[in-house]
Order: sequence, then structure tokens, then C-alpha cells
Amino acid sequence: MSKNIIKSPIVYSIYGINNCHNFLLYNSTYLLKSIFIDKNSKVLKDSKFESLINKFNAALVLLNSNDFNNKFSFKHTQGIIIEFSGDLYSELRDIKDLKDNHCILIADQISDPQNLGQILRTSECAGIDGIILPQHRSVHLTNTVLQISQGAFMHTSIFIETNVVSSIEFLKSKGFWIVGLENSINSKQWYDIDYKGKIAIVVGSEGYGIRELVKKSCDFLATIEMNGKINSLNVSAAVSAILFERQRQLVN
Amino acid sequence: MSKNIIKSPIVYSIYGINNCHNFLLYNSTYLLKSIFIDKNSKVLKDSKFESLINKFNAALVLLNSNDFNNKFSFKHTQGIIIEFSGDLYSELRDIKDLKDNHCILIADQISDPQNLGQILRTSECAGIDGIILPQHRSVHLTNTVLQISQGAFMHTSIFIETNVVSSIEFLKSKGFWIVGLENSINSKQWYDIDYKGKIAIVVGSEGYGIRELVKKSCDFLATIEMNGKINSLNVSAAVSAILFERQRQLVN
Repeated sequence: MSKNIIKSPIVYSIYGINNCHNFLLYNSTYLLKSIFIDKNSKVLKDSKFESLINKFNAALVLLNSNDFNNKFSFKHTQGIIIEFSGDLYSELRDIKDLKDNHCILIADQISDPQNLGQILRTSECAGIDGIILPQHRSVHLTNTVLQISQGAFMHTSIFIETNVVSSIEFLKSKGFWIVGLENSINSKQWYDIDYKGKIAIVVGSEGYGIRELVKKSCDFLATIEMNGKINSLNVSAAVSAILFERQRQLVN
Repeated sequence: MSKNIIKSPIVYSIYGINNCHNFLLYNSTYLLKSIFIDKNSKVLKDSKFESLINKFNAALVLLNSNDFNNKFSFKHTQGIIIEFSGDLYSELRDIKDLKDNHCILIADQISDPQNLGQILRTSECAGIDGIILPQHRSVHLTNTVLQISQGAFMHTSIFIETNVVSSIEFLKSKGFWIVGLENSINSKQWYDIDYKGKIAIVVGSEGYGIRELVKKSCDFLATIEMNGKINSLNVSAAVSAILFERQRQLVN
């Protein structure tokens, strides 16, 4: 991945034992500013943190519980908060070393940070290489999204694009097929789509689906048939179903 | 489904246009107590509510915005809140009319209401017939769970069981095969399991997985292979992957 350390003015925060442990273990890209630890929490007794905390000792800030709780409003921190800065985003036009099965997810105007965080987390688990978010009318990488992604933002390239249709044209020029997840008369069942090869998968916003012009740029449309009465699958659940179907096909 | 109207002392609340519309449209089981509407909201102008509101006129309580907002602390109500009571749960030993492909999900000690709500919602969309929750160390149907389920609780039988191992024995006696979702050396890939026939699928808690005795009661173990570095798939995302793989198999 081509992420460079940039001294960005934005400071991001993540918290919780697993999340912070992952960050310290894997981070080679972002500028670690501070590791705040509540002296009375169990973090300092957690063996997996010992060597990491020694390594990043210069950033360590030990606080008593009162100061820790007064300073931060996050819930469920488990007594550890990391602040860091850096550029979380990559440039789509810079991507290289495309794999035969390179897969990019296009999240077209997702507005709920919970959903975007879960989509990131699921995508990373399902081996997705990058995620495109539109510049406008989309949530980007807020602290909530980072937190819910459970560190996935470190291992997946995130691209912000002003014009998703032109991103799709770019991907097509690189040999990608474009699959839109949309319930339409022209849609095939999600398992009847061939996900082998370079693929971009487009999912739409919670209320409105994929925008019309974006949909027209898709080579195929996929639908996930519902079998209940509600017919309202959460977008992150839909992403999980389609991405793991892709995984199934890749090994079969 | 064998849910009877019981005048339970517990009053449940759901809110939001879609959620409340679904409730009024499909409810034949629960006792509608009140429909609170903010007079200045767009609900009264929403054509799909017109006939429903006439039908349930006796329960209607119109409030001005101040009173509405003072009375309720929920966010994102869109100006409508429904209160109802009734028994949300069914009796596992009463189930009958088992389908050839009857499918029950066993959520073993899920503690996060967001996750349980999403699991319910996804299960209903994927045609699951019932969900078993343990009596202890599990979240049950709180208002948050009901809300996130987007009405799925009305269309899926929910069973509370004191002893999940004995629930599994009961299901086995009715011809069910039991599949546990657990990363173990004995696990097959999730798509290598045959989900045709009567199946119960067991998923474990967010932190600890399926309990040992419950796991020993499973006929098969399935794992969802991860392809990233985080290896931490949210339990509701895992449920989506496995339930829609079942759907794929049922029609192929």
C-alpha cells in the first residue's frame, strides 16, 4: 500500500484493548501521537502489551482514573486510548501490483458510520483490496468508523473519489468488471455472478440504493433474494453475503 | 406461529416510519397500546399511514413537538412511536408443522443488543424459522433489539431456553442436524457443509465463541476462512455469510 506519513492536522482516536493492540502491532504508516492508559485499568497487566508499550514508551501517558475519564468521553475504552495522525486515504490512480483477483468495493453514499465501519471490517476479513467512497454525501473515516472497523482501515486501501462514474471507467480500463448490488428486473441472483478476475462490487446507500448513473456503469447487477416479509437486509449484512460468496467461488 | 396475546406488564416501544408501518401492517399478535405521533412531523402526511391510522384510531395520541420530545428520549423517531405489549416469545417444545428445510438459529450468549438486532433482521430476510436464545448471559428482546431488527421479531419465532444442550437434543429428536460456527481444527469451510434438510445453526458470543458443551453437541463445525490480518468478523456478518450460503444451496 502506498500510504505515506503526512503530518496531518487531524488527530484520530481509537480505543479498547484489541483495537489498540492491533494498531501498535501493525502500524507502520501513521504517526503515533499518544497512548493514554488508565493506571488502574488492566491494560498494564496485560502481557501482550508489555513489549509494545516498552517499544512506544515515548508516547505513553499514564493517567489516574479520574483524569482519564474526565479527558475522554468515549465509552468502553477498557482503559486505553491511542491518538494518531496521518493520511488514511490512498490515491486510486496510483494503484499498482493488481492481483488477478483484485477486488474493490464501491460504497456509494453510505451515511451511517456504524454501517461503514462494519463494511470495512467485513471487507478486510473477506480479502478485499480497497474501498471507494464518494467525496460527497458519504460518511468518511470518522473515529466511530475507525473504531467499529476494528483496525481494518490499516489493511485496506481507502479511496475518496469525487466522481464514482469516472472511478468505474478507470477501473474498467484496468480490466475490472463491475457488479452492482441492486434489486432490479435485470439482476441475477448474487450467486449466479462470476466473481473471478478483477472485480469491483458496488453497494448503494441505506435508503436509496445505487445512484442511477453509477448503476448504468455496472456490467452486471446482482440481487440477494429475500425470503421473509421484511425484505430489508442491512447493507453491511448484504456486503457480507456477497463478499463471502466471492470467497467461496475463488477456492472452488 | 403460536404466539398468543398475553396482557404482559412489559410495554415495548418501537419507532420510525418504516418500523411502525411494518408493525401496524403485520401485527396480529401483540396488544397495541398507543401510537404517539408528533403533529408537526411528516407522518400524518405520509399516504401509506392514512388507512392504517384510521384503522387504529383508538390508540392514536397526537402531541405537539415539545410534548413529544419531552416524553421520549429516543433519537431518530421520525415523529412516530408505537407502544405495545404481549409475549414476544414462543415455546420450542410447541413447534409443529416443521418444514423439510426448517432452520433454527441458536445464538449462544450474544451480549450486544446491536448484534442480536442485526442477527434477527438478517435471519428473517434469509428465511430462518426461529431463533433460540439462552435464558442466562444473553441479551433478550429489549427495545434496542426490536428497533434494530426492523420488525423481524414479528415474523420469526423466538425461544428462550434455560439449557441449550437440551434444546439441541430436542431438535435432534425432531430430525435436525446441528451445525456450529466455530474456528476449530475439525471445522469444515462454511460452504462445504450441506444445509439442506432440517438444520440448526449455532453461533457463539462475540468474545468467547460457542460454549464447550454446546459445541460438543454439534454434528458438524463450520468455519469462515478469513483472508485479512484482523481475522475478526462480527458475529452478525458471519451469520449473514452462512445463512445466505444456505439459501444458495437450497435453490441449487
